[in-house]
Amino acid sequence: MNNPTSPGRQVKPVAIQRINGTNSHPDEDLLASEEPLEIHVEGTSIAVVMRTPGEDRELAAGFLVTEGLVRKREEILELQPGPGCREPGAETGNTVNVRLSRPESLDLKRLTRHVFSSSSCGICSKATIEAVHQQFPAVRDDFLVSPEVLRLLPSALIAAQETFRRTGGLHACALFRETGQLLALREDVGRHNALDKVIGWALLEDQLPLCRHLLLLSGRVSFEMMQKALAAGIPLVAAISAPSSLAVEFARASGQTLVGFLRDERMNVYAGENRISSKSATSDVRDSGSTL
Amino acid sequence: MNNPTSPGRQVKPVAIQRINGTNSHPDEDLLASEEPLEIHVEGTSIAVVMRTPGEDRELAAGFLVTEGLVRKREEILELQPGPGCREPGAETGNTVNVRLSRPESLDLKRLTRHVFSSSSCGICSKATIEAVHQQFPAVRDDFLVSPEVLRLLPSALIAAQETFRRTGGLHACALFRETGQLLALREDVGRHNALDKVIGWALLEDQLPLCRHLLLLSGRVSFEMMQKALAAGIPLVAAISAPSSLAVEFARASGQTLVGFLRDERMNVYAGENRISSKSATSDVRDSGSTL
Repeated sequence: MNNPTSPGRQVKPVAIQRINGTNSHPDEDLLASEEPLEIHVEGTSIAVVMRTPGEDRELAAGFLVTEGLVRKREEILELQPGPGCREPGAETGNTVNVRLSRPESLDLKRLTRHVFSSSSCGICSKATIEAVHQQFPAVRDDFLVSPEVLRLLPSALIAAQETFRRTGGLHACALFRETGQLLALREDVGRHNALDKVIGWALLEDQLPLCRHLLLLSGRVSFEMMQKALAAGIPLVAAISAPSSLAVEFARASGQTLVGFLRDERMNVYAGENRISSKSATSDVRDSGSTL
Repeated sequence: MNNPTSPGRQVKPVAIQRINGTNSHPDEDLLASEEPLEIHVEGTSIAVVMRTPGEDRELAAGFLVTEGLVRKREEILELQPGPGCREPGAETGNTVNVRLSRPESLDLKRLTRHVFSSSSCGICSKATIEAVHQQFPAVRDDFLVSPEVLRLLPSALIAAQETFRRTGGLHACALFRETGQLLALREDVGRHNALDKVIGWALLEDQLPLCRHLLLLSGRVSFEMMQKALAAGIPLVAAISAPSSLAVEFARASGQTLVGFLRDERMNVYAGENRISSKSATSDVRDSGSTL
Protein backbone atom coordinates (compact mmCIF):
# COMPACT_ATOMS: atom_id res chain seq x y z
CA MET A 1 0.00 0.00 0.00
CA ASN A 2 1.34 3.36 -1.00
CA ASN A 3 1.00 6.27 1.42
CA PRO A 4 4.27 8.18 1.53
CA THR A 5 3.08 11.29 3.35
CA SER A 6 4.94 12.53 6.35
CA PRO A 7 2.10 13.09 8.83
CA GLY A 8 3.86 16.12 10.35
CA ARG A 9 2.35 18.73 8.08
CA GLN A 10 -1.07 17.10 7.82
CA VAL A 11 -1.96 18.09 11.38
CA LYS A 12 -1.49 21.28 13.36
CA PRO A 13 -1.69 21.74 17.13
CA VAL A 14 -3.84 24.65 18.37
CA ALA A 15 -4.53 26.07 21.80
CA ILE A 16 -8.21 25.76 22.74
CA GLN A 17 -10.57 26.25 25.64
CA ARG A 18 -12.24 22.93 26.45
CA ILE A 19 -15.67 23.16 28.09
CA ASN A 20 -17.34 20.14 29.69
CA GLY A 21 -20.46 20.82 31.66
CA THR A 22 -19.61 23.65 34.06
CA ASN A 23 -15.88 22.94 33.79
CA SER A 24 -13.68 25.00 31.47
CA HIS A 25 -9.91 24.73 31.01
CA PRO A 26 -7.23 25.55 28.42
CA ASP A 27 -5.99 22.58 26.41
CA GLU A 28 -4.45 21.67 23.08
CA ASP A 29 -6.14 20.04 20.08
CA LEU A 30 -4.79 18.58 16.86
CA LEU A 31 -6.49 19.83 13.69
CA ALA A 32 -6.39 18.70 10.08
CA SER A 33 -4.22 21.15 8.15
CA GLU A 34 -5.79 23.27 5.43
CA GLU A 35 -3.62 25.56 3.26
CA PRO A 36 -4.03 27.06 -0.20
CA LEU A 37 -2.27 25.44 -3.16
CA GLU A 38 -1.96 27.28 -6.45
CA ILE A 39 -1.61 25.16 -9.59
CA HIS A 40 0.25 26.72 -12.52
CA VAL A 41 0.28 25.16 -15.98
CA GLU A 42 2.81 26.59 -18.44
CA GLY A 43 3.06 29.74 -16.33
CA THR A 44 -0.70 30.31 -16.06
CA SER A 45 -2.47 29.99 -12.69
CA ILE A 46 -5.42 27.68 -13.35
CA ALA A 47 -6.67 27.09 -9.80
CA VAL A 48 -6.23 27.76 -6.09
CA VAL A 49 -7.45 24.79 -4.06
CA MET A 50 -7.74 24.60 -0.27
CA ARG A 51 -6.08 21.33 0.62
CA THR A 52 -4.26 19.38 3.30
CA PRO A 53 -0.54 19.64 2.43
CA GLY A 54 1.38 16.50 1.70
CA GLU A 55 0.95 15.09 -1.79
CA ASP A 56 0.88 18.28 -3.79
CA ARG A 57 2.38 16.85 -6.96
CA GLU A 58 -0.24 14.11 -6.96
CA LEU A 59 -3.01 16.60 -6.25
CA ALA A 60 -1.94 18.80 -9.16
CA ALA A 61 -1.59 15.80 -11.47
CA GLY A 62 -4.99 14.41 -10.47
CA PHE A 63 -6.60 17.83 -10.85
CA LEU A 64 -5.32 18.01 -14.42
CA VAL A 65 -6.79 14.56 -15.15
CA THR A 66 -10.20 15.23 -13.63
CA GLU A 67 -10.42 18.67 -15.27
CA GLY A 68 -9.80 17.00 -18.63
CA LEU A 69 -6.41 18.56 -19.43
CA VAL A 70 -4.22 15.43 -19.20
CA ARG A 71 -4.88 11.72 -19.73
CA LYS A 72 -1.47 10.00 -19.69
CA ARG A 73 1.79 10.26 -17.71
CA GLU A 74 3.73 11.08 -20.87
CA GLU A 75 1.74 14.29 -21.41
CA ILE A 76 3.45 15.84 -18.35
CA LEU A 77 7.04 16.96 -18.90
CA GLU A 78 7.68 18.36 -15.44
CA LEU A 79 5.72 18.79 -12.24
CA GLN A 80 7.59 20.76 -9.57
CA PRO A 81 6.69 22.42 -6.28
CA GLY A 82 7.23 26.18 -6.51
CA PRO A 83 8.91 28.45 -3.97
CA GLY A 84 5.67 29.50 -2.26
CA CYS A 85 5.31 32.60 -0.14
CA ARG A 86 8.33 34.83 0.36
CA GLU A 87 7.07 36.38 3.62
CA PRO A 88 9.20 35.45 6.66
CA GLY A 89 7.51 32.77 8.74
CA ALA A 90 4.91 31.88 6.11
CA GLU A 91 4.30 28.37 4.84
CA THR A 92 6.42 27.38 1.87
CA GLY A 93 5.73 25.22 -1.13
CA ASN A 94 2.13 26.24 -1.78
CA THR A 95 2.49 26.25 -5.55
CA VAL A 96 3.00 23.50 -8.10
CA ASN A 97 4.30 24.32 -11.57
CA VAL A 98 3.37 21.97 -14.40
CA ARG A 99 5.04 21.86 -17.80
CA LEU A 100 3.40 19.84 -20.55
CA SER A 101 5.11 17.73 -23.19
CA ARG A 102 3.01 19.48 -25.81
CA PRO A 103 2.26 22.93 -24.37
CA GLU A 104 0.63 23.99 -27.64
CA SER A 105 -2.18 21.50 -26.85
CA LEU A 106 -3.19 23.36 -23.67
CA ASP A 107 -6.78 24.54 -24.03
CA LEU A 108 -8.15 26.02 -20.81
CA LYS A 109 -11.64 26.05 -22.30
CA ARG A 110 -11.55 22.26 -21.85
CA LEU A 111 -11.52 22.64 -18.05
CA THR A 112 -14.41 20.45 -16.89
CA ARG A 113 -15.88 23.13 -14.67
CA HIS A 114 -16.40 25.33 -17.72
CA VAL A 115 -18.41 22.85 -19.80
CA PHE A 116 -21.62 22.53 -17.81
CA SER A 117 -23.31 25.59 -19.15
CA SER A 118 -22.54 24.89 -22.79
CA SER A 119 -25.73 22.98 -23.53
CA SER A 120 -27.94 24.59 -26.14
CA CYS A 121 -31.19 23.36 -24.56
CA GLY A 122 -30.63 25.00 -21.18
CA ILE A 123 -29.35 23.48 -17.96
CA CYS A 124 -30.57 20.21 -16.47
CA SER A 125 -29.11 16.98 -15.08
CA LYS A 126 -29.27 15.19 -18.44
CA ALA A 127 -27.47 17.99 -20.29
CA THR A 128 -24.84 18.13 -17.54
CA ILE A 129 -24.16 14.39 -17.81
CA GLU A 130 -23.99 14.61 -21.62
CA ALA A 131 -21.52 17.49 -21.38
CA VAL A 132 -19.24 15.36 -19.17
CA HIS A 133 -19.49 12.42 -21.59
CA GLN A 134 -18.14 14.59 -24.38
CA GLN A 135 -14.90 14.69 -22.38
CA PHE A 136 -14.92 11.33 -20.62
CA PRO A 137 -16.47 8.28 -22.30
CA ALA A 138 -18.63 5.79 -20.39
CA VAL A 139 -16.81 2.73 -19.00
CA ARG A 140 -17.34 -0.67 -20.64
CA ASP A 141 -15.08 -2.94 -18.63
CA ASP A 142 -16.77 -6.11 -17.47
CA PHE A 143 -15.63 -7.95 -14.39
CA LEU A 144 -17.21 -9.44 -11.31
CA VAL A 145 -16.62 -8.48 -7.68
CA SER A 146 -18.13 -10.50 -4.88
CA PRO A 147 -19.97 -8.81 -2.00
CA GLU A 148 -17.38 -10.42 0.31
CA VAL A 149 -14.57 -8.42 -1.32
CA LEU A 150 -16.59 -5.20 -1.02
CA ARG A 151 -17.43 -5.83 2.63
CA LEU A 152 -13.75 -5.95 3.56
CA LEU A 153 -12.87 -2.57 1.98
CA PRO A 154 -14.04 -0.28 4.84
CA SER A 155 -11.93 -2.06 7.47
CA ALA A 156 -8.89 -1.78 5.18
CA LEU A 157 -9.59 1.94 4.81
CA ILE A 158 -10.04 2.53 8.53
CA ALA A 159 -6.91 0.54 9.42
CA ALA A 160 -4.83 2.70 7.08
CA GLN A 161 -6.48 6.06 7.85
CA GLU A 162 -3.98 7.60 10.27
CA THR A 163 -4.72 11.30 10.30
CA PHE A 164 -8.48 11.03 10.67
CA ARG A 165 -8.03 9.13 13.90
CA ARG A 166 -6.07 12.02 15.31
CA THR A 167 -8.18 14.95 14.10
CA GLY A 168 -11.62 13.69 13.04
CA GLY A 169 -11.39 16.23 10.25
CA LEU A 170 -10.40 14.45 7.07
CA HIS A 171 -12.08 12.74 4.16
CA ALA A 172 -10.41 9.59 2.88
CA CYS A 173 -10.33 7.98 -0.51
CA ALA A 174 -8.80 4.57 -1.25
CA LEU A 175 -8.02 2.71 -4.46
CA PHE A 176 -8.12 -1.09 -4.58
CA ARG A 177 -7.44 -3.78 -7.15
CA GLU A 178 -10.49 -5.83 -8.11
CA THR A 179 -9.19 -8.49 -5.71
CA GLY A 180 -9.55 -6.07 -2.78
CA GLN A 181 -5.83 -5.29 -2.43
CA LEU A 182 -5.30 -1.70 -1.22
CA LEU A 183 -3.12 0.30 -3.63
CA ALA A 184 -3.29 3.90 -2.40
CA LEU A 185 -5.04 5.87 0.32
CA ARG A 186 -5.18 9.64 0.54
CA GLU A 187 -6.76 11.96 3.13
CA ASP A 188 -7.68 15.62 2.77
CA VAL A 189 -9.96 18.27 4.27
CA GLY A 190 -11.67 18.31 0.85
CA ARG A 191 -13.16 15.05 -0.42
CA HIS A 192 -12.53 16.10 -4.03
CA ASN A 193 -8.84 16.69 -3.17
CA ALA A 194 -8.50 13.23 -1.61
CA LEU A 195 -9.82 11.73 -4.86
CA ASP A 196 -7.65 13.96 -7.06
CA LYS A 197 -4.60 12.82 -5.04
CA VAL A 198 -5.42 9.14 -5.59
CA ILE A 199 -5.96 9.71 -9.31
CA GLY A 200 -2.77 11.79 -9.52
CA TRP A 201 -0.86 8.96 -7.82
CA ALA A 202 -2.18 6.58 -10.49
CA LEU A 203 -1.23 8.99 -13.29
CA LEU A 204 2.31 9.41 -11.98
CA GLU A 205 2.56 5.59 -11.68
CA ASP A 206 1.37 5.43 -15.30
CA GLN A 207 -1.61 3.26 -14.30
CA LEU A 208 -4.42 5.21 -15.99
CA PRO A 209 -7.09 4.31 -16.98
CA LEU A 210 -8.00 2.43 -13.77
CA CYS A 211 -10.31 0.10 -15.64
CA ARG A 212 -10.27 -2.88 -13.22
CA HIS A 213 -10.10 -0.96 -9.95
CA LEU A 214 -12.42 -0.23 -7.03
CA LEU A 215 -12.69 3.14 -5.31
CA LEU A 216 -13.84 3.56 -1.72
CA LEU A 217 -14.97 6.94 -0.31
CA SER A 218 -15.22 7.60 3.42
CA GLY A 219 -18.30 9.80 3.15
CA ARG A 220 -21.05 10.69 0.72
CA VAL A 221 -21.02 10.52 -3.07
CA SER A 222 -21.92 13.57 -5.14
CA PHE A 223 -22.06 14.03 -8.90
CA GLU A 224 -18.59 15.59 -8.82
CA MET A 225 -17.02 12.50 -7.23
CA MET A 226 -18.53 10.18 -9.87
CA GLN A 227 -17.35 12.51 -12.61
CA LYS A 228 -13.79 12.47 -11.26
CA ALA A 229 -13.88 8.65 -10.99
CA LEU A 230 -15.03 8.46 -14.61
CA ALA A 231 -12.20 10.76 -15.71
CA ALA A 232 -9.81 8.11 -14.37
CA GLY A 233 -11.83 5.26 -15.95
CA ILE A 234 -12.86 3.79 -12.58
CA PRO A 235 -15.79 1.38 -13.07
CA LEU A 236 -16.81 0.80 -9.42
CA VAL A 237 -17.28 3.35 -6.64
CA ALA A 238 -18.30 2.31 -3.12
CA ALA A 239 -19.03 4.62 -0.21
CA ILE A 240 -19.64 4.35 3.51
CA SER A 241 -22.48 6.85 3.28
CA ALA A 242 -25.24 7.98 0.89
CA PRO A 243 -25.04 8.98 -2.78
CA SER A 244 -26.96 11.94 -4.19
CA SER A 245 -29.63 11.44 -6.85
CA LEU A 246 -27.37 12.90 -9.54
CA ALA A 247 -24.48 10.61 -8.55
CA VAL A 248 -26.81 7.66 -9.25
CA GLU A 249 -28.10 9.10 -12.54
CA PHE A 250 -24.53 9.79 -13.60
CA ALA A 251 -23.31 6.28 -12.69
CA ARG A 252 -26.16 4.65 -14.64
CA ALA A 253 -25.51 6.80 -17.71
CA SER A 254 -21.75 6.16 -17.46
CA GLY A 255 -21.76 2.36 -17.09
CA GLN A 256 -20.36 2.66 -13.55
CA THR A 257 -21.23 0.55 -10.52
CA LEU A 258 -22.22 2.59 -7.47
CA VAL A 259 -22.51 1.03 -4.00
CA GLY A 260 -23.59 3.07 -0.97
CA PHE A 261 -24.06 2.56 2.78
CA LEU A 262 -21.35 -0.12 2.72
CA ARG A 263 -21.43 -1.06 6.42
CA ASP A 264 -20.93 -4.42 8.12
CA GLU A 265 -22.84 -7.05 6.16
CA ARG A 266 -24.99 -4.54 4.27
CA MET A 267 -24.76 -2.47 1.11
CA ASN A 268 -27.11 -0.78 -1.35
CA VAL A 269 -26.33 -1.20 -5.06
CA TYR A 270 -27.56 1.92 -6.88
CA ALA A 271 -26.14 1.29 -10.35
CA GLY A 272 -24.26 -1.35 -12.35
CA GLU A 273 -25.21 -4.37 -10.26
CA ASN A 274 -24.03 -6.56 -13.15
CA ARG A 275 -20.52 -6.24 -11.67
CA ILE A 276 -21.57 -7.58 -8.27
CA SER A 277 -21.26 -11.35 -8.26
CA SER A 278 -24.36 -13.04 -6.87
CA LYS A 279 -22.99 -16.53 -6.55
CA SER A 280 -22.91 -16.32 -2.77
CA ALA A 281 -26.07 -14.26 -2.40
CA THR A 282 -29.48 -15.90 -2.45
CA SER A 283 -32.74 -14.34 -3.50
CA ASP A 284 -34.85 -12.81 -0.85
CA VAL A 285 -37.49 -15.27 0.34
CA ARG A 286 -40.04 -12.46 0.11
CA ASP A 287 -39.51 -12.46 -3.65
CA SER A 288 -39.80 -16.19 -4.29
CA GLY A 289 -42.58 -18.69 -3.87
CA SER A 290 -44.99 -16.38 -2.12
CA THR A 291 -47.63 -16.53 -4.84
CA LEU A 292 -47.20 -20.19 -5.75
CA MET B 1 -38.71 29.20 12.39
CA ASN B 2 -38.63 29.72 8.67
CA ASN B 3 -38.36 26.68 6.40
CA PRO B 4 -40.79 27.06 3.54
CA THR B 5 -39.46 24.29 1.30
CA SER B 6 -41.80 21.72 -0.08
CA PRO B 7 -39.94 18.49 0.71
CA GLY B 8 -41.18 16.84 -2.49
CA ARG B 9 -38.34 17.89 -4.72
CA GLN B 10 -35.62 17.56 -2.08
CA VAL B 11 -35.74 13.76 -2.24
CA LYS B 12 -35.95 11.29 -5.10
CA PRO B 13 -36.91 7.61 -4.94
CA VAL B 14 -34.59 5.20 -6.77
CA ALA B 15 -34.73 1.45 -7.38
CA ILE B 16 -31.83 -0.36 -5.72
CA GLN B 17 -30.56 -3.84 -4.98
CA ARG B 18 -30.25 -4.26 -1.22
CA ILE B 19 -27.65 -6.79 -0.06
CA ASN B 20 -27.55 -8.02 3.55
CA GLY B 21 -25.22 -10.91 4.22
CA THR B 22 -26.01 -13.56 1.63
CA ASN B 23 -29.45 -12.10 1.00
CA SER B 24 -30.09 -9.82 -1.98
CA HIS B 25 -33.38 -8.28 -3.06
CA PRO B 26 -34.70 -5.35 -5.07
CA ASP B 27 -35.96 -2.42 -3.02
CA GLU B 28 -36.45 1.34 -3.13
CA ASP B 29 -34.38 4.04 -1.46
CA LEU B 30 -34.91 7.77 -0.99
CA LEU B 31 -31.97 9.96 -2.01
CA ALA B 32 -31.15 13.59 -1.48
CA SER B 33 -31.77 15.43 -4.77
CA GLU B 34 -28.85 17.02 -6.58
CA GLU B 35 -29.42 19.09 -9.72
CA PRO B 36 -27.46 21.84 -11.45
CA LEU B 37 -28.51 25.47 -10.96
CA GLU B 38 -27.17 28.19 -13.21
CA ILE B 39 -27.02 31.71 -11.78
CA HIS B 40 -27.26 34.59 -14.26
CA VAL B 41 -26.56 38.19 -13.29
CA GLU B 42 -27.61 40.84 -15.80
CA GLY B 43 -27.67 38.19 -18.53
CA THR B 44 -24.22 36.76 -17.76
CA SER B 45 -23.86 33.22 -16.41
CA ILE B 46 -21.61 33.56 -13.35
CA ALA B 47 -21.85 30.04 -11.90
CA VAL B 48 -23.32 26.57 -12.16
CA VAL B 49 -23.73 25.04 -8.70
CA MET B 50 -24.80 21.47 -7.91
CA ARG B 51 -27.49 21.89 -5.31
CA THR B 52 -30.58 20.36 -3.75
CA PRO B 53 -33.56 22.13 -5.37
CA GLY B 54 -35.92 24.07 -3.19
CA GLU B 55 -34.72 27.53 -2.21
CA ASP B 56 -33.11 28.63 -5.44
CA ARG B 57 -33.78 32.34 -5.04
CA GLU B 58 -32.18 32.26 -1.60
CA LEU B 59 -29.25 30.24 -2.89
CA ALA B 60 -28.61 32.72 -5.69
CA ALA B 61 -28.98 35.69 -3.32
CA GLY B 62 -26.63 34.14 -0.75
CA PHE B 63 -24.12 33.23 -3.44
CA LEU B 64 -24.02 36.88 -4.54
CA VAL B 65 -23.40 37.96 -0.92
CA THR B 66 -20.66 35.44 -0.18
CA GLU B 67 -18.96 36.10 -3.53
CA GLY B 68 -18.84 39.79 -2.64
CA LEU B 69 -21.20 41.10 -5.36
CA VAL B 70 -24.11 42.23 -3.15
CA ARG B 71 -24.37 43.43 0.46
CA LYS B 72 -27.92 44.75 0.89
CA ARG B 73 -31.43 43.75 -0.18
CA GLU B 74 -31.89 47.02 -2.02
CA GLU B 75 -29.03 46.22 -4.41
CA ILE B 76 -31.18 43.49 -6.00
CA LEU B 77 -33.91 44.72 -8.34
CA GLU B 78 -35.28 41.35 -9.39
CA LEU B 79 -34.49 37.71 -8.69
CA GLN B 80 -36.52 35.28 -10.79
CA PRO B 81 -36.36 31.57 -11.59
CA GLY B 82 -35.72 31.06 -15.30
CA PRO B 83 -37.43 28.63 -17.66
CA GLY B 84 -34.80 25.92 -17.28
CA CYS B 85 -34.35 23.11 -19.75
CA ARG B 86 -36.60 22.97 -22.79
CA GLU B 87 -36.15 19.23 -23.37
CA PRO B 88 -39.37 17.23 -22.82
CA GLY B 89 -39.29 15.44 -19.48
CA ALA B 90 -36.30 17.35 -18.11
CA GLU B 91 -36.31 19.17 -14.81
CA THR B 92 -37.49 22.74 -14.99
CA GLY B 93 -36.46 25.86 -13.16
CA ASN B 94 -32.71 25.22 -12.98
CA THR B 95 -31.75 28.83 -13.63
CA VAL B 96 -32.13 32.00 -11.60
CA ASN B 97 -31.89 35.39 -13.26
CA VAL B 98 -30.75 38.34 -11.15
CA ARG B 99 -31.14 41.99 -12.08
CA LEU B 100 -29.28 44.57 -10.01
CA SER B 101 -30.51 48.00 -8.99
CA ARG B 102 -27.25 49.47 -10.28
CA PRO B 103 -26.11 47.09 -13.03
CA GLU B 104 -23.24 49.42 -13.90
CA SER B 105 -21.67 48.49 -10.52
CA LEU B 106 -21.32 44.79 -11.48
CA ASP B 107 -17.65 43.87 -11.40
CA LEU B 108 -17.09 40.14 -11.88
CA LYS B 109 -13.45 40.55 -10.92
CA ARG B 110 -14.73 41.05 -7.36
CA LEU B 111 -15.93 37.44 -7.21
CA THR B 112 -14.33 36.10 -4.04
CA ARG B 113 -13.02 32.98 -5.71
CA HIS B 114 -10.90 35.15 -8.00
CA VAL B 115 -9.09 37.12 -5.30
CA PHE B 116 -6.97 34.45 -3.63
CA SER B 117 -4.12 34.51 -6.09
CA SER B 118 -3.81 38.29 -6.21
CA SER B 119 -1.21 38.54 -3.44
CA SER B 120 2.09 40.00 -4.54
CA CYS B 121 4.14 37.90 -2.09
CA GLY B 122 2.96 34.53 -3.37
CA ILE B 123 0.31 32.21 -1.96
CA CYS B 124 0.00 31.26 1.71
CA SER B 125 -2.68 31.14 4.39
CA LYS B 126 -1.91 34.65 5.67
CA ALA B 127 -2.11 36.22 2.20
CA THR B 128 -5.37 34.35 1.55
CA ILE B 129 -6.93 35.67 4.77
CA GLU B 130 -5.75 39.21 4.00
CA ALA B 131 -7.23 39.00 0.51
CA VAL B 132 -10.62 38.07 2.01
CA HIS B 133 -10.40 40.94 4.52
CA GLN B 134 -10.06 43.42 1.68
CA GLN B 135 -13.61 42.42 0.72
CA PHE B 136 -15.14 41.58 4.10
CA PRO B 137 -14.02 43.43 7.25
CA ALA B 138 -13.41 41.65 10.54
CA VAL B 139 -16.37 41.56 12.97
CA ARG B 140 -16.29 43.74 16.09
CA ASP B 141 -19.62 43.05 17.72
CA ASP B 142 -19.37 42.26 21.40
CA PHE B 143 -21.95 40.14 23.14
CA LEU B 144 -22.00 37.18 25.49
CA VAL B 145 -23.48 33.74 24.88
CA SER B 146 -23.64 31.19 27.66
CA PRO B 147 -22.49 27.59 27.11
CA GLU B 148 -26.05 26.54 28.03
CA VAL B 149 -27.46 28.37 25.00
CA LEU B 150 -24.87 26.77 22.72
CA ARG B 151 -25.52 23.27 24.08
CA LEU B 152 -29.18 23.46 23.08
CA LEU B 153 -28.49 24.39 19.43
CA PRO B 154 -27.77 20.85 18.09
CA SER B 155 -31.05 19.41 19.38
CA ALA B 156 -32.93 22.31 17.78
CA LEU B 157 -31.13 21.59 14.50
CA ILE B 158 -31.84 17.87 14.60
CA ALA B 159 -35.50 18.38 15.53
CA ALA B 160 -35.98 20.62 12.49
CA GLN B 161 -33.83 18.66 10.03
CA GLU B 162 -36.45 16.75 8.08
CA THR B 163 -34.79 15.63 4.89
CA PHE B 164 -31.60 14.31 6.46
CA ARG B 165 -33.63 11.89 8.51
CA ARG B 166 -35.07 10.42 5.36
CA THR B 167 -31.94 10.26 3.18
CA GLY B 168 -28.85 10.62 5.39
CA GLY B 169 -27.41 12.65 2.53
CA LEU B 170 -27.71 16.31 3.42
CA HIS B 171 -25.68 18.95 5.19
CA ALA B 172 -27.63 21.35 7.39
CA CYS B 173 -27.00 24.91 8.40
CA ALA B 174 -29.07 26.82 10.96
CA LEU B 175 -29.20 30.46 11.99
CA PHE B 176 -30.14 31.46 15.55
CA ARG B 177 -30.62 34.67 17.47
CA GLU B 178 -28.11 35.20 20.28
CA THR B 179 -30.83 33.97 22.64
CA GLY B 180 -30.84 30.56 20.90
CA GLN B 181 -34.08 31.08 18.96
CA LEU B 182 -33.98 29.25 15.61
CA LEU B 183 -34.56 31.64 12.70
CA ALA B 184 -33.83 29.60 9.56
CA LEU B 185 -32.63 26.10 8.69
CA ARG B 186 -31.52 24.97 5.26
CA GLU B 187 -30.34 21.58 3.98
CA ASP B 188 -28.37 20.78 0.84
CA VAL B 189 -26.09 18.13 -0.65
CA GLY B 190 -23.39 20.83 -0.58
CA ARG B 191 -22.52 22.36 2.79
CA HIS B 192 -21.58 25.67 1.11
CA ASN B 193 -25.02 25.75 -0.57
CA ALA B 194 -26.81 25.20 2.75
CA LEU B 195 -24.94 28.21 4.15
CA ASP B 196 -25.52 30.34 1.04
CA LYS B 197 -29.26 29.57 1.34
CA VAL B 198 -29.36 30.73 4.97
CA ILE B 199 -27.46 33.91 4.11
CA GLY B 200 -29.68 34.47 1.07
CA TRP B 201 -32.76 34.11 3.29
CA ALA B 202 -31.33 36.79 5.59
CA LEU B 203 -30.57 39.09 2.65
CA LEU B 204 -34.09 38.75 1.24
CA GLU B 205 -35.47 39.45 4.74
CA ASP B 206 -33.21 42.54 4.81
CA GLN B 207 -31.46 41.30 7.97
CA LEU B 208 -27.82 41.62 6.87
CA PRO B 209 -25.34 41.99 8.48
CA LEU B 210 -26.13 39.21 10.98
CA CYS B 211 -24.07 40.87 13.68
CA ARG B 212 -25.75 39.33 16.75
CA HIS B 213 -26.48 35.87 15.38
CA LEU B 214 -25.19 32.34 15.87
CA LEU B 215 -24.60 29.87 13.05
CA LEU B 216 -24.67 26.09 13.54
CA LEU B 217 -23.20 23.68 10.98
CA SER B 218 -24.05 19.97 10.95
CA GLY B 219 -20.57 18.86 9.90
CA ARG B 220 -17.02 20.15 9.68
CA VAL B 221 -15.83 23.73 9.30
CA SER B 222 -13.47 24.68 6.49
CA PHE B 223 -11.93 28.03 5.59
CA GLU B 224 -14.65 28.55 2.99
CA MET B 225 -17.46 28.24 5.54
CA MET B 226 -15.84 30.82 7.86
CA GLN B 227 -15.34 33.16 4.92
CA LYS B 228 -19.01 32.89 3.93
CA ALA B 229 -20.06 33.51 7.55
CA LEU B 230 -17.86 36.63 7.63
CA ALA B 231 -19.39 37.87 4.38
CA ALA B 232 -22.73 37.93 6.23
CA GLY B 233 -21.17 39.52 9.34
CA ILE B 234 -21.80 36.42 11.52
CA PRO B 235 -19.66 36.65 14.69
CA LEU B 236 -20.15 33.11 16.08
CA VAL B 237 -19.97 29.78 14.24
CA ALA B 238 -20.52 26.46 16.03
CA ALA B 239 -20.22 23.01 14.51
CA ILE B 240 -21.00 19.42 15.48
CA SER B 241 -17.67 18.27 14.08
CA ALA B 242 -14.07 19.45 13.64
CA PRO B 243 -12.73 22.69 12.13
CA SER B 244 -9.70 22.78 9.84
CA SER B 245 -6.54 24.62 10.85
CA LEU B 246 -7.25 27.41 8.36
CA ALA B 247 -10.82 27.84 9.65
CA VAL B 248 -9.32 28.55 13.10
CA GLU B 249 -6.64 30.92 11.74
CA PHE B 250 -9.30 32.73 9.74
CA ALA B 251 -11.67 33.04 12.73
CA ARG B 252 -8.91 34.46 14.94
CA ALA B 253 -7.86 36.99 12.31
CA SER B 254 -11.50 37.97 11.66
CA GLY B 255 -12.67 38.50 15.24
CA GLN B 256 -15.03 35.52 14.98
CA THR B 257 -15.86 32.96 17.66
CA LEU B 258 -15.45 29.35 16.49
CA VAL B 259 -16.81 26.42 18.52
CA GLY B 260 -16.28 22.79 17.40
CA PHE B 261 -17.28 19.30 18.54
CA LEU B 262 -20.43 20.74 20.11
CA ARG B 263 -21.87 17.52 21.51
CA ASP B 264 -23.84 16.85 24.72
CA GLU B 265 -22.19 18.77 27.55
CA ARG B 266 -18.90 19.35 25.69
CA MET B 267 -17.46 21.86 23.25
CA ASN B 268 -14.06 23.11 22.12
CA VAL B 269 -13.62 26.87 21.74
CA TYR B 270 -11.04 27.49 19.02
CA ALA B 271 -11.31 31.26 18.66
CA GLY B 272 -13.04 34.28 20.19
CA GLU B 273 -13.74 32.77 23.61
CA ASN B 274 -14.44 36.30 24.86
CA ARG B 275 -18.00 35.85 23.56
CA ILE B 276 -18.58 32.69 25.64
CA SER B 277 -19.90 33.66 29.05
CA SER B 278 -18.03 31.90 31.84
CA LYS B 279 -20.35 32.81 34.69
CA SER B 280 -21.66 29.26 34.99
CA ALA B 281 -18.37 27.52 34.20
CA THR B 282 -15.78 26.95 36.90
CA SER B 283 -12.05 26.55 36.48
CA ASP B 284 -10.72 23.07 36.05
CA VAL B 285 -9.62 21.68 39.40
CA ARG B 286 -6.48 20.41 37.68
CA ASP B 287 -5.49 24.04 37.16
CA SER B 288 -6.04 25.31 40.71
CA GLY B 289 -4.63 24.45 44.08
CA SER B 290 -2.58 21.47 43.02
CA THR B 291 0.76 23.08 43.83
CA LEU B 292 -0.29 24.89 47.01
